[in-house]
Parts: sequence; C-alpha cells; structure tokens
Amino acid sequence: MRGIVPQKVKGFRDITSSQNALRELIISKATEVYRRFGFSRFDTPVLEYAECLGKYLPDADSVAQGVYSFKNPEQEPVFDTEGREMRDKDNNVVMENHYVAMRYDLTAPLARVYAESLWQQHLRGEIQGKTNLFRRYQYGPVYRFEAKLDPGRFREFWQMDFDTVGAEDVSADAENCIILSQALENIGLKRGTYLIKINNRKIVNGLLAYSGITDKDEEMSVMRIIDKLDKIGIDAVAQELGGGRVDEVSGAQIPGLGLDAQHVDLIINYIKDFEQHDTRRNVIEKLKSKPAYENDTYKEGVIELELIDHILADLGYDEQVAILDPGMVRGLGYYTGPIYEVESLQTYKDAKGRERRVGSICGGGRYDGLVENLLHVKVPATGASIGVDRLAELLTLTGQVPEQIDGAVIVIVFDDDLMPLYQKTAMQLRAAGINTEIYYGAKRGLKHQMAYADRNNCPLAIIIGGDEAAKGVASVKNLKLGKQLADTITDKNEWKQRVQKEIPLDILADEIKKMLAEA
Amino acid sequence: MRGIVPQKVKGFRDITSSQNALRELIISKATEVYRRFGFSRFDTPVLEYAECLGKYLPDADSVAQGVYSFKNPEQEPVFDTEGREMRDKDNNVVMENHYVAMRYDLTAPLARVYAESLWQQHLRGEIQGKTNLFRRYQYGPVYRFEAKLDPGRFREFWQMDFDTVGAEDVSADAENCIILSQALENIGLKRGTYLIKINNRKIVNGLLAYSGITDKDEEMSVMRIIDKLDKIGIDAVAQELGGGRVDEVSGAQIPGLGLDAQHVDLIINYIKDFEQHDTRRNVIEKLKSKPAYENDTYKEGVIELELIDHILADLGYDEQVAILDPGMVRGLGYYTGPIYEVESLQTYKDAKGRERRVGSICGGGRYDGLVENLLHVKVPATGASIGVDRLAELLTLTGQVPEQIDGAVIVIVFDDDLMPLYQKTAMQLRAAGINTEIYYGAKRGLKHQMAYADRNNCPLAIIIGGDEAAKGVASVKNLKLGKQLADTITDKNEWKQRVQKEIPLDILADEIKKMLAEA
Repeated sequence: MRGIVPQKVKGFRDITSSQNALRELIISKATEVYRRFGFSRFDTPVLEYAECLGKYLPDADSVAQGVYSFKNPEQEPVFDTEGREMRDKDNNVVMENHYVAMRYDLTAPLARVYAESLWQQHLRGEIQGKTNLFRRYQYGPVYRFEAKLDPGRFREFWQMDFDTVGAEDVSADAENCIILSQALENIGLKRGTYLIKINNRKIVNGLLAYSGITDKDEEMSVMRIIDKLDKIGIDAVAQELGGGRVDEVSGAQIPGLGLDAQHVDLIINYIKDFEQHDTRRNVIEKLKSKPAYENDTYKEGVIELELIDHILADLGYDEQVAILDPGMVRGLGYYTGPIYEVESLQTYKDAKGRERRVGSICGGGRYDGLVENLLHVKVPATGASIGVDRLAELLTLTGQVPEQIDGAVIVIVFDDDLMPLYQKTAMQLRAAGINTEIYYGAKRGLKHQMAYADRNNCPLAIIIGGDEAAKGVASVKNLKLGKQLADTITDKNEWKQRVQKEIPLDILADEIKKMLAEA
Repeated sequence: MRGIVPQKVKGFRDITSSQNALRELIISKATEVYRRFGFSRFDTPVLEYAECLGKYLPDADSVAQGVYSFKNPEQEPVFDTEGREMRDKDNNVVMENHYVAMRYDLTAPLARVYAESLWQQHLRGEIQGKTNLFRRYQYGPVYRFEAKLDPGRFREFWQMDFDTVGAEDVSADAENCIILSQALENIGLKRGTYLIKINNRKIVNGLLAYSGITDKDEEMSVMRIIDKLDKIGIDAVAQELGGGRVDEVSGAQIPGLGLDAQHVDLIINYIKDFEQHDTRRNVIEKLKSKPAYENDTYKEGVIELELIDHILADLGYDEQVAILDPGMVRGLGYYTGPIYEVESLQTYKDAKGRERRVGSICGGGRYDGLVENLLHVKVPATGASIGVDRLAELLTLTGQVPEQIDGAVIVIVFDDDLMPLYQKTAMQLRAAGINTEIYYGAKRGLKHQMAYADRNNCPLAIIIGGDEAAKGVASVKNLKLGKQLADTITDKNEWKQRVQKEIPLDILADEIKKMLAEA
C-alpha cells in the first residue's frame, strides 16, 4: 500500500517570517530606486505558453530542458506562420493541447507582453512598427529545473527585474549599471563591497567573426564554455573549446567543441589578456589595439563600452563601482550588446571555516532580438535583474540582516472563564495600535504559552488571573527586558521586580506603549 | 508550417501598474490588521506534490480535475503507508515521477507545512502529538483550471490568508470574523456595505445525520448542491437533491443525488426556514427549537454559534457586521466547524446598465481534519482568506480606487549632444528624492515623447535645448496643471504662460519639489 509523506517538492522551500522580512526589505529598497528612475510595476503570470517563452532557455535550446513544462488541459487552435488558425482538409480548425511552462525568468515573458501588444495593433490594422517605449519593474518567483541541484541552490527563487523596451541608446545601458549600484547601496551594501563588471557581446561576437566563427549556434557554444571560466579554469576552457577533456572529479568524458588550435589560441589569449583587472581607460585602449578592431561588430562594441565609460565617469561612478571585463560573457543566449554582472566581494566563513564568496548577485544586458524572435519586428531592449534570494543569502551570511522584528504582545490564557476579559483587553490594545494576540493554543499550560511567546519573539506577556481581574489590573511581564537582564541579574527576586509589574487595566494601553518604546 | 502567436495563456492576465497599486493597497492594509492580531508572514511554494495537496480539491475528488498538475521531471522514491521507501523484489528502492501540482489555495499547503514539521519530529524520535500553535498569513497567486471560464474570472488569482493551526477554541473563529471586518474596513470598505455570514458545518452534518445521511461523500454532495442555491434557486436545489433536472439554458440533463422525498423536504424546509435574515438571537432560538437539536453534532454546532454570537456582541460587532445564516454551507470539502463568508452588498452598473453585485469577497472556516488527512494526527485549525482580486474588482467597479499615481518627471531628449547634461540634471533631481526619467525611446520626435509622458502620467516635463543649455536654464512644463487648465483657459498664450516656465539649473530641484507639492 502506498502512503503519503508530507514534504516539499525537492528544490523548493518555505520562507519563514524573518526570511520574508529580509525579502521585503530588499524589494522595498530596490523599488524605491527603480521608481526613482521612472520604472513602474507591471506583472506577468507564472505560467506562459512554452513557445512564447521562445527557445532562449538558460543553457539549453530545448523547451523541455531546465524548464517545468506540461500540456495545458485545454485544447486550442494551432496557428500557421502568419498567425492564422490552421485548418484540416475538412476545413475544421486544427486543435491541440499546447505546452505551457512555468517562467524561468522575467525577461522572456516581458518580450511576450510587448510582442502581444504589437500583434494586437497589427490585428486592429494599425501601423506596424510602433515600437513605443515601455519601462517596467517586476519581482517574483522564477522556476528552473536543474537536474543536479547544488547545495544552497533552489528550483524556485525570486528575481527583481527592471527593463526598458524600445530604447536603442546605450545611455540606457549605462543607466542600468547606475540603477544596480544605487539599488544595492539603498539595500545596505557599502561601496567597494560589490563590483559591476561590464562587457559587450558585440566584442566577443566580432572577435569570433574575425577568426572565422560566424555560425550563431557555434558562437553561443563558445560563450557558454567561456562562461564556465570561474568554475573550471582556463586550461579546461581551452580543452572544451578544442578536443574535449575528462572531468577530474567524476571521471566523465566532456566532449569538446572541436575548434582548431589557432581559434582556441585566439580565444584563450584574448581571455588571458584581460584576466587582470585594469582601469576602464586602459582596457579600452587594449581592445582598440587588437587586430580584431578591423571587424565592424567588434569596433562597434568597443565604442559603446567607451560611451558607457564616459557616462559612468561623468556621473561619478569610478572603477570602485564598475570595471570593464572583456572576459565576462554571461551564459544566456539572448544578449546582443552591453552585458553586466555584479559580483559581491564580501566573504564569509562556511561550516568548515573556509573563506567563501557568494559570487554573482545581479546581471543584465541588452537583448535587441528577443521580441523579433516571437514576431518579426526588431525591438531594441535592455534591462537587469537583482537575484533577490542570492542577495538575501549574502546579507544573511555576512551578518547584515535587519534586527529581528518583535512579535505581538501576548495575552496569556490563564483561566478560560476570563476569555471575555482577555478579548476586551486585546481589542483595547489593538485599537491603540499595539499588535496583540491571545494565546489560542490547545495546550494551555503556562510553559507551553511561554515557549510560544519565546518562539515568536513576543516582547511582553499580559497575565490576568482571578486575583488580577478582581483588582482590575494586569500583571505585565517584559519578556524582552527579561532576556537582556537574564545574564546580568542573578537574584531571582530582583530580576522579577525589574521585569514584571502590575498595571491597572484602564491605563494598560498607554503603559504598554511606553514599555514597547523603551524596549 | 506552424507559427507562434504571442499571447497569454487563456485565463491568465498581466497586471498593469495601477492594478498593482490597488493590489499593494489591499495587501498592505490587510497586513496591518493581520499583524495587529499577531500573525506573521510565512510563504509556501507555488508547486507542491499533488498527493500532499490531498484530495480536498474545490468541487472535485480527483487531483486531475480543476488543478494544474503534471509529472515532476525527477524520479523519486515511492513510500509505503508507514512512510518508508518501498522496495522491489531485488531490494531496490522503487522510483517514479511523482505528480506535482500548482497550489489551488493557500490552505492545503499550510496543512503540508504543519504535517511535515510533525513528521520531521517523528523521524527525530521526538514525542508525537506536539501540536504547537502556529499562526501565519500569506498572500500570492493560486491556480484553478476551470474548464468553462466565466467572463471576468481567471485561472490565476491572488488570495490573502491568515490561519491559526493548533487552536480548538471557537473564540479563534469569532476572532477570524472580527479580523475580516477590520481588514475590509482598513482597506476602505464602509460598515454596512458588506455582511459576514456565519454558519457551522456541524449543524448541517447533524441535520443530515438526524435524517439518516451519514455517508461522508453523500454529505459532501448535499453541501455542494446547497452551495449552488444563490446561482440556481431553491427549486433546482430540490430537483438536484432528488431525481435531477434539465438545465433551462443548455438543455443538459443534470443527474440528481437520488434522495427520497422525505429527506429532500427536510433539507429544503431547513433552507426555507432561514431564508429571511433574522437577528442572531432569533436564529439561535429557531435552531434550538428544531427536532434535530436531539442530535449531538447539531447541538454542538448551535452552542458554538451561540458562543461566537456572544463574543461578537461583547466586542461591539452587531448584526450590521455579521449575521447567522444556517443555509450557507461553502463548497470546499475540508471544513469541519464554524464557516464564514463575506458578501459585498454594494452594487454597480454593468455595461448594459443593469444593477449587479460582486458577491462573495472573503471566506473561511474551521478545518480540523486537514492535517489528519496527510498524517494520522488530529490537529485543530481555523482560518480565512480575502479574495484579493475579487476585492480589487469590487473597489474598481464601485469607484473606490485610489487616485492614479504620478509617473516620474520626464527629461525630454531634445538634442542628443546634450545627453550628458540631461543625465546630470536627472541625477541631481533623483538625489533630491524626485522620481525622474530620461526619455530613451528610439523615436525621438517631441510628439512621441509627449505621448509617452501622457501615457505614463508624468507630472512635469523638463526641456533643455541649445539655447536653454547656453543660458544655464531648463524650460519646465507642468503637464498635470496643463491638463487641469486645458478646459478653463482657451487662450493659448495665457495657457502656455501658466503652464511653462524657465528655471535656472542650479535651483531646479528645489523649484520642481515646490511645483510637485502644489500639483
């Protein structure tokens, strides 16, 4: 006989009240900055038609891989390339169950939003190509099915994106970097504890084109291998670009891309050339000095980076905030121009006492082809994303979490017959703006009630027994002060005197407000 | 050849910035009240193992029906009824792809959370049955696949729940009603525009038991038919309880439950008896006068309602806020005790000018069996939920939405060469706390820029051309005032004089702050 074991889906998790408080802090502080730059909130659903998410999936060309996708329970029409319903030989509309997928990021759905609006304009017979400016921010969970789940990684995690669709000016890209910097600092990160790395896909594409690689799929395969640099090191990258390698840990044979030695050398030398951080000015000069500068795409990329450098410098964002990193490529397929990644420089000690880094906490870039992929209209677009959960993890690991929020004042249930009095008292406190709860647990022992108060960080407990009720008073125990004094005051009577006092019910709300303000 | 039509999944929708503002208002105001009563935020994932959501699905006993469910891409162990991994004859762990499902409410996942924690305690060898008190609130989207989608209904919609697990005291149920009332009023609903209807499942169960219906499935079928009363009317309810009926609109044959005439009469008379609203006191007296009062379950239900009435009356919640409605049963399978539903009494005119009601906006009740269903431990629990999107719809239809939020101050891009000046100017304004954006649209015509400003409700536009730059000033156009004056001032020059003014760049931030404060 089968049974049920109550459990979360593997890779998913519950979020406790203090984790939520941290998430709320990140979101509200980033919202402030996003709004300050003129973005407004626009939300899309968790579920989308798989084909509308496009083929730009993280590290995969197939919809099935990496994405939670399934057949919609509903039959719907199938469309031809002109967007007309397909019909069978009897002229009936061809119906099928379309695949739907849980969003794997917030960018692909945004492309759907924009393409859908253009398509609706087209259906209404309006002029094509009205690529209006559209700026929005959005936050929420995204879903990735990673077959091998590294510790500390999750299959549901939160991102917070802002995007500008309809802007081709790279000034918008420079601004994206400034927004990320301001958002992180507004959340509480100190300048110098994070670093924005900027590159341009055009430079890498141009370099590859210059060396004869123009096939888009091959280009992307090269990018994905370079993207693993931090993980696997330069030698392994060279092997994967060439004849392949054997993984040291697993012993698995990893096939190579099969580039010839000359191409591999060109790419490896390029990476090595920029391995050491340098001033933005020097990096630009070095990029200009390369033979690939003959290539138009490469050149365009360098000139765009130069403009971004100018804007950042002009507005006071120096190398402490943002550097140029020509070796940084990002794994996502959809980028077409400037790309950026924010790395945290802070370290923490893991369980074994080893110094560790959290790594990348934000990323973004320009994706001028994402709408075109759904609808054959070219729409320039650029944006970036804060990894909300990654950042929360960073703040937790480095001890930068906000103070634990107090729970509610708790009314102890001492005597069931006094419940009406407890309820009236609680309502009076609430009316005065004090968060107050009555202990409703089935287990009524005082020990249970106090353990609950402790678990929930209740600052004060209100105890009213028969004697107190008769006298019209409450005995108020300052739990927060009690914890603070527990170490310094050893005399039980003194401790009790400091921590507990009798207060007349008619001035209870005012007195409790004072006690909470002092605590 | 197949093509892609960019579109949302049917029944899903995007949420615009003003819709988000309304959602944020509802959530923040309800959060205030939930916290005031001692609840803290705890979130569960969107995806759960289908079997952990249990068989308590809305109006259906099968996981497949009404729920988005699919096979997890990962193979996992199968468990026996004792929670041990099952093994085949070769002693290998039996693996399979478990079904996962998108949550259809926020209550079933909460039962999983609680059951999981008890199960973990059990695995650690701790004492069974430590049913600690746990109170949480949560908000977010839930998913229902309704094959036939009524207009204005969605398959993804938001709920905002609060629950108390581990409390058997019906005082907690009375408090739930008070919380709903306070939350709705904090959101902006006036007293008297909504009505909380309270009943007790025990009364209905007792009534059915008294008349010989004790089969749980049959009981539930009766509830579901009674739940349709408002939709189909008393005669159709009688027919569905008995021999069935033919739907007037569709002509479809709807099978009946097959109860004999005596049972049908008993139920119908009970419903009719309480059709007219009456005072809570009178309803209780009437309930007590029925022959079914002999039945223990029925009696217990009546006594609980009596206690709830006392508490509400004691705390000033009279019949204007909450009534007893013995005919209200709620469709969900998991309720075991007091149940409540909040109906909006407000009306609005639909497109055809007909007077309409939004109907039910909140619901809740006691579900003492939900954890037991997953793990054979009885855990008392009670909670309620605000239908966030339903409430947003109500506020919109009845014109109670907050004022439209201003967009950002917009810096018009008049001359690309002046971009560095625009960026500096924007940064100065932002540093002064003014939301400011630079127009980055690819279409640079002034008409496009002004149309964008209008679409985004920008209050002011900053225009700096070559002349202004040379003079060190900006021309500031008060778009908000411009709209207000457009009707009253017909003289173009006068209008321009009132609406547009030149401001030196070095005092721009201060002047704009003043203008925004006045607007």
